Amino acid sequence: MSGAAVARVVGAYGRIAETDRSEAWIHLRPKADVEREAAAIDARVDAGERLPLAGTVFAVKDNIDVAGLPTTAACAPFAYTPTQSSPAVARLVAAGALVLGKTNLDQFATGLVGTRSPFGAVRGALLPERISGGSSSGSAVVVALGIADFALGTDTAGSGRVPAMFNGIVGVKPTVGLIPTLGVVAACRSYDCVSVFAPTLAAAQLPLRTIIGPDSADHRGRVWPLDVPLAAPAAPVIAVPDDAGLAPVSADARAAFTAAVRRLGQAGATITAVDISPLLDAARLLYEGALVAERYEAFGAFLEEHPEAADPSVLSIVRSAREVAGADVIRDQDRVLAYRRVAARLFDGVDALLVPTTTDHPDFAEVAADPIGVNSRLGTYTNFVNLLDLCAVSVPAGEADGGPFGVTVIAPAFHDQPAVDIASHLLGSPGAGDGPALPAGIPLVVFGAHLRGLPLNGQLTALGARFVREVRTAPRYRMHVLPGDPARPAVRLAGDSELGVALAGEEWLLSPAALGRLTASLAWPMMLGPVELADGTRATGFGASEALGPDVSEHGGWRAYLAASRELVP
Amino acid sequence: MSGAAVARVVGAYGRIAETDRSEAWIHLRPKADVEREAAAIDARVDAGERLPLAGTVFAVKDNIDVAGLPTTAACAPFAYTPTQSSPAVARLVAAGALVLGKTNLDQFATGLVGTRSPFGAVRGALLPERISGGSSSGSAVVVALGIADFALGTDTAGSGRVPAMFNGIVGVKPTVGLIPTLGVVAACRSYDCVSVFAPTLAAAQLPLRTIIGPDSADHRGRVWPLDVPLAAPAAPVIAVPDDAGLAPVSADARAAFTAAVRRLGQAGATITAVDISPLLDAARLLYEGALVAERYEAFGAFLEEHPEAADPSVLSIVRSAREVAGADVIRDQDRVLAYRRVAARLFDGVDALLVPTTTDHPDFAEVAADPIGVNSRLGTYTNFVNLLDLCAVSVPAGEADGGPFGVTVIAPAFHDQPAVDIASHLLGSPGAGDGPALPAGIPLVVFGAHLRGLPLNGQLTALGARFVREVRTAPRYRMHVLPGDPARPAVRLAGDSELGVALAGEEWLLSPAALGRLTASLAWPMMLGPVELADGTRATGFGASEALGPDVSEHGGWRAYLAASRELVP
Repeated sequence: MSGAAVARVVGAYGRIAETDRSEAWIHLRPKADVEREAAAIDARVDAGERLPLAGTVFAVKDNIDVAGLPTTAACAPFAYTPTQSSPAVARLVAAGALVLGKTNLDQFATGLVGTRSPFGAVRGALLPERISGGSSSGSAVVVALGIADFALGTDTAGSGRVPAMFNGIVGVKPTVGLIPTLGVVAACRSYDCVSVFAPTLAAAQLPLRTIIGPDSADHRGRVWPLDVPLAAPAAPVIAVPDDAGLAPVSADARAAFTAAVRRLGQAGATITAVDISPLLDAARLLYEGALVAERYEAFGAFLEEHPEAADPSVLSIVRSAREVAGADVIRDQDRVLAYRRVAARLFDGVDALLVPTTTDHPDFAEVAADPIGVNSRLGTYTNFVNLLDLCAVSVPAGEADGGPFGVTVIAPAFHDQPAVDIASHLLGSPGAGDGPALPAGIPLVVFGAHLRGLPLNGQLTALGARFVREVRTAPRYRMHVLPGDPARPAVRLAGDSELGVALAGEEWLLSPAALGRLTASLAWPMMLGPVELADGTRATGFGASEALGPDVSEHGGWRAYLAASRELVP
Repeated sequence: MSGAAVARVVGAYGRIAETDRSEAWIHLRPKADVEREAAAIDARVDAGERLPLAGTVFAVKDNIDVAGLPTTAACAPFAYTPTQSSPAVARLVAAGALVLGKTNLDQFATGLVGTRSPFGAVRGALLPERISGGSSSGSAVVVALGIADFALGTDTAGSGRVPAMFNGIVGVKPTVGLIPTLGVVAACRSYDCVSVFAPTLAAAQLPLRTIIGPDSADHRGRVWPLDVPLAAPAAPVIAVPDDAGLAPVSADARAAFTAAVRRLGQAGATITAVDISPLLDAARLLYEGALVAERYEAFGAFLEEHPEAADPSVLSIVRSAREVAGADVIRDQDRVLAYRRVAARLFDGVDALLVPTTTDHPDFAEVAADPIGVNSRLGTYTNFVNLLDLCAVSVPAGEADGGPFGVTVIAPAFHDQPAVDIASHLLGSPGAGDGPALPAGIPLVVFGAHLRGLPLNGQLTALGARFVREVRTAPRYRMHVLPGDPARPAVRLAGDSELGVALAGEEWLLSPAALGRLTASLAWPMMLGPVELADGTRATGFGASEALGPDVSEHGGWRAYLAASRELVP
């Protein structure tokens, strides 16, 4: 579609003018510059180039490098102009997305309020008298206002989630290490990650897939394990905080949370109340223990040298960290590992933990009256997540206290795709749950009792397999009905003298370890090997070592055969 | 064999009396106690119980808990008597092994010399005028003297390797986290691990297999990844230090090292010289940087309160650590991660790094003259290993400077079995390289071109597969020769009207991810599925989706067919 990128840029700058939220930006690029880049993208698309994010515009939190634009971390004397973009930015730009500018943040990403910036406190997108949330304040607001299609934030203790709830959008905080943090100003090196804001989960999925992946220069990078689940089960087990765990939440927010839990239950989830106090205890290590030395290491000495440019709350936090002893850091890091083991037990048999994204939505006066206390309360359900090596997805969930409410799906490290899937169920839009997953998988074609809804499908879902699409084989196969229970077919290549049939099947994705386990678990006469599809490609699929039972190839597939046999038995 | 355990105990105490090395023990158990336990073991074996380590005796470094015996860490006022054994001890005892007692060590496992103990300096087993090495001094010596069949040590910076070389035995230091460190006195929590000493690699393998594995209460535990290689390739690529990297080694030791490298080359390894200076730089972080705060956290305050009971060198090390700032710990931990990335690049395309285990073998006067300097030099090739998350196996390699010389095979985390395999090639005794691996695997039966020495065997070895044994199928199969190159068979079930044949094959072990990748890589007409073996068990094996080419079943297997067809073409 010629001109799509230029049109999108014109629309974005139109929205910027309409909405008058200059405090959301620290550096907004001149419209003409972005328009010129947009024209170049349109020309490349017209020339046939495949640019999956062509026609989209995005904003970047100003603690993430964009080549040629200053990075300030909301601290003017800290500013520098990088010559290289952070890998996430570079990957999005390579996919055709255009940078609008750099957004405001709580200084050095230290805060959940959006008020801790010498560049101005950021107002909520929908409720300007209330805070935007932070620290990724500007990124959330420009997405919520429809200025940007998505935005990059960072998240150490909730900075990618709290602003998502306050502005009625989606915030995805992947497992720490999956997106390179090269070119990202450190807040707490060990727990920082890049996050994505978008209006919907579907809109977040492609940017996420684009930016996740190792960079050879990133020594903090991690890669997907080879046994990672690629989908949430259709009927997941969801833990929710017990009554005590919900105590910090307003009555109105609690009602909204209960309604969200009920929706998940109606969508097939099993709900179980758990004691989250160990998680809340763990969170205290981040600011009240020795781990605050992480922030001193990252920017403490700099802020102490530039107190005039420091936000007072941020300065007081790092000043408290200067005297932390090394041995106390070691001790608290060991405690973190002990809490991670507690969290692992909580997730044993549980697919995700659902929490309110935050407790309530303060106005500016409340924050001014108690800047540290309010910030601490807002982090109740977010602070422990990165510390305990979990991933999280915050999605809108109705309203509470006159504004947008949100809930967060929390899952173990590398269970990012199941977390997205469960969140999409919550939204009643399981669209993000189909198609390719964030981690790569091996395609497997199934023809019989492993099809969705049929008796052996649970073997696939228990292995974390993900449904991709319905497929048809090349017209070279025959299908037999095996004797025994449950009813299942055997698929074989047609012999030289036989007519082959194009059989209907389903393509699923599995992790390498899951496919290995499936192979090792096969019962005679089932085997796995190459199958030719209708489009001439090869996939791995089921076949049989013996052709047994009646030939039912004329039905063209197992479902059609089952339907026909049901008709025969009225 | 009735009475074997009692006989072994009698023999052990006989050796103790003969060898007169009381300084090796901090707590030697009364012979009568151990003999009583031995009689009970003999009775259980006689009653038919399977106790794989029955008839063996072992020693435990005195920083590892044995229920009912005091743990001192070579610091008398620190002593306590645990009611529970450390999991490694408990697992060995459950497998029938008997504890002889607790062995001497450099205090709080801080040292590589074996002289830093108020319980006495430990003399080398073979050269009493030289040091035993440490910190696992007593454990290494009692194995070298033939008193114990094996012994547990610990290793943070070389304590499980340096004493192995000085006493002419094997020291295996697994990947940190594989053996629980519950009930082990911390030296540096983040880098401590339990290690095994034994006279040979074969003697170490069963104790290692027995003690590796998670304990639900161990929050520092790690499990085998599902893509871990289960064997070293037959022709591994081995990196060795370049000339500069060998500079600290004596001329005589260098000659012995060069001879060991030559043996590996003759055994089929490709040797490549590398610059190990980044590894040596990383090692400096452990004692010269902020990470020494680990030791202060573990036992610094205790030693400062009990200076009269402290070894002077150990006390001076922890005193230097008291003032380390928390932020500096965070910074140096980040540097460690950066060095780990450098090490990962070094191991890219390299199966292992071979180094001298240590530089030279000092006598007591040398250590007394410069206790910190000599200790530091002895750690040249060991200090970086745990820090960079590597595993290591030290094995004897001839003599140097009038005493035993040793080399260490170093491999990435979780490559423990390949490291053992390469070390066993070095010893010219690849026995430890066959049979079950340290991590579990999935059995796969192959029949044709994947057999050892045949054209497709490289597909298995590239996936880290491990040869287990030759097998034969149930007499239900037929073998055909597929058209095309390389020559390979198709195996199928015999039809109802056909005579089945028992085919010869090989059983290999693969990781789940490797089996998944093999399944996904199959080319038509190959498939994988259940195969029935001669003993009635089922394994996963190759089959064919089509029976093509001439039937050669009468040969009973692919090798026999190949041999027969070679005879036909003289």
